[in-house]
Amino acid sequence: MEKKIGFIGLGNLGIPMAKNLIESGFHLQVYNRTLKKAEALDQEKITICNTPARAATGVDIVITIVSEDAVLHEIVSGDDGILAGMSPGALHISMSTISAQTSEQLAQNHAQNNTQYLAAPVFGRPEAAAARKLWICVSGPPEVKKSATGVLNSLGQGVIDFGDAIGGANVVKLAGNFMIMAALEAMAEAYTLAEKSGLDREQVANFFSDTLFACPIYQNYGKFIAAKQYQPIAFKARLGYKDARLVLDTAQHAKMPAPLISLAHNRLLAAVAKGRGDNSDWIAAFGEGVSEEAGV
Amino acid sequence: MEKKIGFIGLGNLGIPMAKNLIESGFHLQVYNRTLKKAEALDQEKITICNTPARAATGVDIVITIVSEDAVLHEIVSGDDGILAGMSPGALHISMSTISAQTSEQLAQNHAQNNTQYLAAPVFGRPEAAAARKLWICVSGPPEVKKSATGVLNSLGQGVIDFGDAIGGANVVKLAGNFMIMAALEAMAEAYTLAEKSGLDREQVANFFSDTLFACPIYQNYGKFIAAKQYQPIAFKARLGYKDARLVLDTAQHAKMPAPLISLAHNRLLAAVAKGRGDNSDWIAAFGEGVSEEAGV
Amino acid sequence: MEKKIGFIGLGNLGIPMAKNLIESGFHLQVYNRTLKKAEALDQEKITICNTPARAATGVDIVITIVSEDAVLHEIVSGDDGILAGMSPGALHISMSTISAQTSEQLAQNHAQNNTQYLAAPVFGRPEAAAARKLWICVSGPPEVKKSATGVLNSLGQGVIDFGDAIGGANVVKLAGNFMIMAALEAMAEAYTLAEKSGLDREQVANFFSDTLFACPIYQNYGKFIAAKQYQPIAFKARLGYKDARLVLDTAQHAKMPAPLISLAHNRLLAAVAKGRGDNSDWIAAFGEGVSEEAGV
Amino acid sequence: MEKKIGFIGLGNLGIPMAKNLIESGFHLQVYNRTLKKAEALDQEKITICNTPARAATGVDIVITIVSEDAVLHEIVSGDDGILAGMSPGALHISMSTISAQTSEQLAQNHAQNNTQYLAAPVFGRPEAAAARKLWICVSGPPEVKKSATGVLNSLGQGVIDFGDAIGGANVVKLAGNFMIMAALEAMAEAYTLAEKSGLDREQVANFFSDTLFACPIYQNYGKFIAAKQYQPIAFKARLGYKDARLVLDTAQHAKMPAPLISLAHNRLLAAVAKGRGDNSDWIAAFGEGVSEEAGV
Repeated sequence: MEKKIGFIGLGNLGIPMAKNLIESGFHLQVYNRTLKKAEALDQEKITICNTPARAATGVDIVITIVSEDAVLHEIVSGDDGILAGMSPGALHISMSTISAQTSEQLAQNHAQNNTQYLAAPVFGRPEAAAARKLWICVSGPPEVKKSATGVLNSLGQGVIDFGDAIGGANVVKLAGNFMIMAALEAMAEAYTLAEKSGLDREQVANFFSDTLFACPIYQNYGKFIAAKQYQPIAFKARLGYKDARLVLDTAQHAKMPAPLISLAHNRLLAAVAKGRGDNSDWIAAFGEGVSEEAGV
Repeated sequence: MEKKIGFIGLGNLGIPMAKNLIESGFHLQVYNRTLKKAEALDQEKITICNTPARAATGVDIVITIVSEDAVLHEIVSGDDGILAGMSPGALHISMSTISAQTSEQLAQNHAQNNTQYLAAPVFGRPEAAAARKLWICVSGPPEVKKSATGVLNSLGQGVIDFGDAIGGANVVKLAGNFMIMAALEAMAEAYTLAEKSGLDREQVANFFSDTLFACPIYQNYGKFIAAKQYQPIAFKARLGYKDARLVLDTAQHAKMPAPLISLAHNRLLAAVAKGRGDNSDWIAAFGEGVSEEAGV
Repeated sequence: MEKKIGFIGLGNLGIPMAKNLIESGFHLQVYNRTLKKAEALDQEKITICNTPARAATGVDIVITIVSEDAVLHEIVSGDDGILAGMSPGALHISMSTISAQTSEQLAQNHAQNNTQYLAAPVFGRPEAAAARKLWICVSGPPEVKKSATGVLNSLGQGVIDFGDAIGGANVVKLAGNFMIMAALEAMAEAYTLAEKSGLDREQVANFFSDTLFACPIYQNYGKFIAAKQYQPIAFKARLGYKDARLVLDTAQHAKMPAPLISLAHNRLLAAVAKGRGDNSDWIAAFGEGVSEEAGV
Repeated sequence: MEKKIGFIGLGNLGIPMAKNLIESGFHLQVYNRTLKKAEALDQEKITICNTPARAATGVDIVITIVSEDAVLHEIVSGDDGILAGMSPGALHISMSTISAQTSEQLAQNHAQNNTQYLAAPVFGRPEAAAARKLWICVSGPPEVKKSATGVLNSLGQGVIDFGDAIGGANVVKLAGNFMIMAALEAMAEAYTLAEKSGLDREQVANFFSDTLFACPIYQNYGKFIAAKQYQPIAFKARLGYKDARLVLDTAQHAKMPAPLISLAHNRLLAAVAKGRGDNSDWIAAFGEGVSEEAGV
């Protein structure tokens, strides 16, 4: 008999992840704010639910991958939230990019509900999700992590355990997103400096991503920065800003002054301030931000 | 008959490069401010000279790899500088990290002297130099670049041509050093944020340098940042500051405001201000700088 | 018959303000977390209350001046909060440094309670409060501002009306505190630059505060920065950080990237991170922060 | 018999200063790159010279007030520089905004020429110069300062002695210009924050410059920032950038990391990068810079 999973969040990452779960033999009870997104999935392998509670009913595992802490709070604890549907002992695997504090609050809510919570945020762009190449960070009680292993292994190329504290994996995810932002700023400044000095910015970028910085972030993001090519949008500037704000919140929470975190935050906030939050990629916040200040 | 080369600068990079040239069959006429450094080389394959002019006499090629623009100006145009010794048509390959403006000035000096100049700065730490794994950036007139190819190929794993403008390769070198500084700051902030949030900073560092940032800079420098291990010194903070200042000069010259360049510059300047210029590594300027502000 | 006022918050500013109200003929129903502070007041002119609700009972006006948004929320809407004690139509004058969002939330709470709310934050150090020299910023509905005029005039040298929006005055207060932080950073950098260049930093400071910057902030704060004299503590670094965080929150709320706000925020956060939040003045966060980075 | 002075530099400040000297009874031997500027002066009281050397011939005092260190070097030591014209023992009063290092170099040049040098940079906009309200900072050997007193007193409202080191006054001048830049940034951020929060930015500006910041810089510059009124140009962004660069050079020379100096530098560099160096005021570099990032 096929196993069922509740699956909530059919965004750029959610869709390929859902497809992979279906391909791995799971039947999905899906919920999404705009149900139309579910048309991308094999209709025979899914049950479309009109509330999170229904998607969470009668399953051992509910996966959420949504865009904001506030949305996730509503999906979990709202009137028709998953807490209202989950069976005792069932597990919520929370794969969104959220703060450690949100994870801790949700874990408490689950504990009072006799259900379980696991933070399991992911690294990877949609193509990586489609290719089961996500990196999945987990943290929380050992037995909870163990329960999630099977499902998580079917979604990524590695599941890394960052300890028993509830929100540890969330901090790792945010630290990683910050490191990406920092690399975007560094590349934008370096390549623009090269350009303004008379060099070919794409040649310079290729050199660095073939040698000293021969790694996915510099290669994949660097080519967009180098070519000043920011369309189509893979990740909206507004969502990038949301993440930058979570990084800054995490720094404030940890009592940690961090000038580069502030710089990245302000780049993304400037994109939002200029009205580009929804119509430009977060890469552009750095690439265009640097170019505009430099007058090129 | 063995071929002779003039070789000036027996620092951390100069020594392994000189050894490789000797091993490739060249006899070296060496000059260094402190001649004692020459003891590290096979005495039968070198001639120790007490002025740059002598090291440059009777050879087709003079290589310089020294620490500062001012030092290089003196070595080229000073009273006993190489201009005084070089034969007409001989070539000066300048491998130091210097400004494009210094390169342009030196090229002019050479032109008036009927000698030739090539900017050929390198990327790589001493181990890379020893293993002939340097990346060598060149720029300048095509025929000059062609003359240097043979020698340069024996020193590195790749020679990359950044065009015909005299100082182009110098800008690429400085842009690259800036990108390293930016990565150091990013890692220092990210790993300290992880630490102050209760995570194991080395585990977090390992994760990133195995995955999203699986490239030499993050791997090689990252392990020092993660372990807060800044000894022994591979590259003094004072020299790192000198490079940061050249990067900033380049940005000023190109009319390019760049907040991350300024941030990196100030980190290294702070290390110098605190009296650590000569007794700490440039990595520590970032690692300790971030830690101290964060109170850990 | 003497008029009664509820008065909550006997901190560095609250005490002299309460004394002035007593001197102006008001009887005060006081509440403070640590009631011992009330000993500084004329016992015949006050009634000590053990809850905010009691302090708010039977009076037309309740004044609050406390240190944090969260504390104020509790004092207003907590179990024994002033909402539970205030008579219909009574007015809460909120003089703390809080966010506009907190003011808006409190105004809503009051509206549901048939009571009134006025944001009236103040500028001035304790000596200014004692001398009735505070500057008081107000915003809100015209009739509410009118009701508060008499009492406010007895506390300061000027009441400035920043319009009808509930939280406008709070933004002005935060903008002003930011401008003070910016001046502290500017003076710390300028005077340390003078010092490190061989000049007498106090002479330089005196010159500027006698001429171009002959105004209270540069004069009063500047002498501490110049003399590196940061004791006794007038305003804790922790509270300064709290304000910096509110400024940054306000900037985020207004979609406004602001690098100097971020810089000020990080200076104060660094003081807290280094364990100096409660044992050093916010001026020291700037003065010592700059000095330490500069190695002096 | 009327006394003669050499006077070089008929810019925005030079013209009113020259007029005041004439009014005080001096006959001026003037030199300016574009001699047409001399038409603004009473032709009977001046002798127009076509080289700095001639302007410096036969007088006890030569005053220079020009825009750049390089220009001043040329005027002093160039082929027809003042050194070629000055009589032994004559005094050069250098009132430009230049680096301490330039002053030291010029003082050496004078010493070898048996002439004297005094750094005497000024604070004040053209109106202040016209009203003899400049603040004049001096530093150097006591007897040299004494010789200059009479003339300097006729130009300003105060002459402040910053010690015997040659370049001390230059550092004070640069520190002051930095403090102005910092105030411009602070006001631009604060008033834009107010604006984006729904307040009237001019009312907010007026409040602060009437109270906490009731001093010339905040009042005079603040009204332009508040009104976003940046024309006519009183001081070009390009010259402001030149000063910011001198401040940064001074910080580098003093081994002094200073993030706000860097921020101010980058604001002015951005104005230059955007092509506004000669067609906008330095105030606009801050006002427009902040507004553009904030999308207003």
